[in-house]
Amino acid sequence: MIKIVILGAGNVASHLFKAFQTAENVEVIQVYNRSKIALENFKSKTQTTTDLAELKNAEIYLVCVKDDAIEEMISKLSQKDGIVAHTSGSVPLSASAKINAVFYPLQTFSKQTEVNFKEIPLCLETSEEKDFDLLEKLAKSISDKVFAISSEQRKKLHLAAVFANNFSNHMFAIAEDLCKQNEVPFEVLSTLIKETAQKATRNSPKEVQTGPAKRNDQATIKQHLAQLNNADYKEIYKLLTQSIINQDG
Amino acid sequence: MIKIVILGAGNVASHLFKAFQTAENVEVIQVYNRSKIALENFKSKTQTTTDLAELKNAEIYLVCVKDDAIEEMISKLSQKDGIVAHTSGSVPLSASAKINAVFYPLQTFSKQTEVNFKEIPLCLETSEEKDFDLLEKLAKSISDKVFAISSEQRKKLHLAAVFANNFSNHMFAIAEDLCKQNEVPFEVLSTLIKETAQKATRNSPKEVQTGPAKRNDQATIKQHLAQLNNADYKEIYKLLTQSIINQDG
Repeated sequence: MIKIVILGAGNVASHLFKAFQTAENVEVIQVYNRSKIALENFKSKTQTTTDLAELKNAEIYLVCVKDDAIEEMISKLSQKDGIVAHTSGSVPLSASAKINAVFYPLQTFSKQTEVNFKEIPLCLETSEEKDFDLLEKLAKSISDKVFAISSEQRKKLHLAAVFANNFSNHMFAIAEDLCKQNEVPFEVLSTLIKETAQKATRNSPKEVQTGPAKRNDQATIKQHLAQLNNADYKEIYKLLTQSIINQDG
Repeated sequence: MIKIVILGAGNVASHLFKAFQTAENVEVIQVYNRSKIALENFKSKTQTTTDLAELKNAEIYLVCVKDDAIEEMISKLSQKDGIVAHTSGSVPLSASAKINAVFYPLQTFSKQTEVNFKEIPLCLETSEEKDFDLLEKLAKSISDKVFAISSEQRKKLHLAAVFANNFSNHMFAIAEDLCKQNEVPFEVLSTLIKETAQKATRNSPKEVQTGPAKRNDQATIKQHLAQLNNADYKEIYKLLTQSIINQDG
């Protein structure tokens, strides 16, 4: 049985707590939070506290607070044994001598949405190699997708996620806008969008690229550019078409 | 019972034929194809022919041949009564006087992949209003997503699909490349990619946009640009960031 303490009571803390409750071999022996109110949801299920001096001894402390609160919280954990892991995507392991691990779920959580934790990638890092096994055991108790990712890799992963998530969503938003302008229900594209994502995750997206740019079909490209009257969209069409052509070069 | 004839024996014809076989109230009474070999798969299930002079009388003729072969085929159907519909995304209804309808499945088919036709949007158009009901009945027998789309709208839809499919896939390909460069398994991003597509189809993608551009978080944007050493990727990052900022303006 791995005994852990969760620090924080926000979205990440709540989703992790829920996932650990169904995990074998893991017991959340305590949840800490500065304010009492947010602890209400945990009270009936485990011991809670608002006082860091009352923290129990655990094998792993999971720090689930906002990035700018991590350092202060961790400094107060300095007398504890056990692994201290934060759950942030952007704070490097080197940020503080007392952080000795990262336990980062690569996903945005909202309170309302139910989460299938088995599918959520957990990116792990420890400063001491000996700590990795235990952290990995904890991660595998709730997720099927556990990865060893260094701070440097995590930084690049965050950048890659901007393309994979934010920028692809902007492509969908432009498609939505073009539909709206022409009174076509955006719903017509739903299946195509879901199919595109499925295909990209089952294959190498580069290998399954299709469309006029991929075929270097200049007649269609010209026709499309003539139809676009938004200056941003026109520039985006040109640049992405060229980038797809260059990627094959 | 709607009696139809399918002309062509390629991917679109095969997938439609299969879908109609499980549909009530539809009977494919014949499949025509120029060459005999491709008709082998249909022979045991319906009447087949390689001779246009032998075409049976049907209520609807579905022309499932390549774009540049549509006109010739349709000219040979000129003595037939019944609706003549092509299945192309890019040929307008006005292209030939003998085309009087469009029955366009908005999806790319490959021979290997099983298709859930219920989810595939069918875009319908008829030159005579009186023909629409029958075509719609045929479409609804195999798909839950049936839309009336004019030739002009279909043109814009094709453009929108370039953003929603080809360009979003290029974003995934760039993310894949950034992962590869940094020895991060691209698989880490799989769940995020699928989640992004799900979210964009359940909501307005514009409304659910997130990321540094959306927050106008210039510190992160600068950091990201400094990390990108591919000139295309850098330009794309800048342009899309600006476009997301402009969309809010």
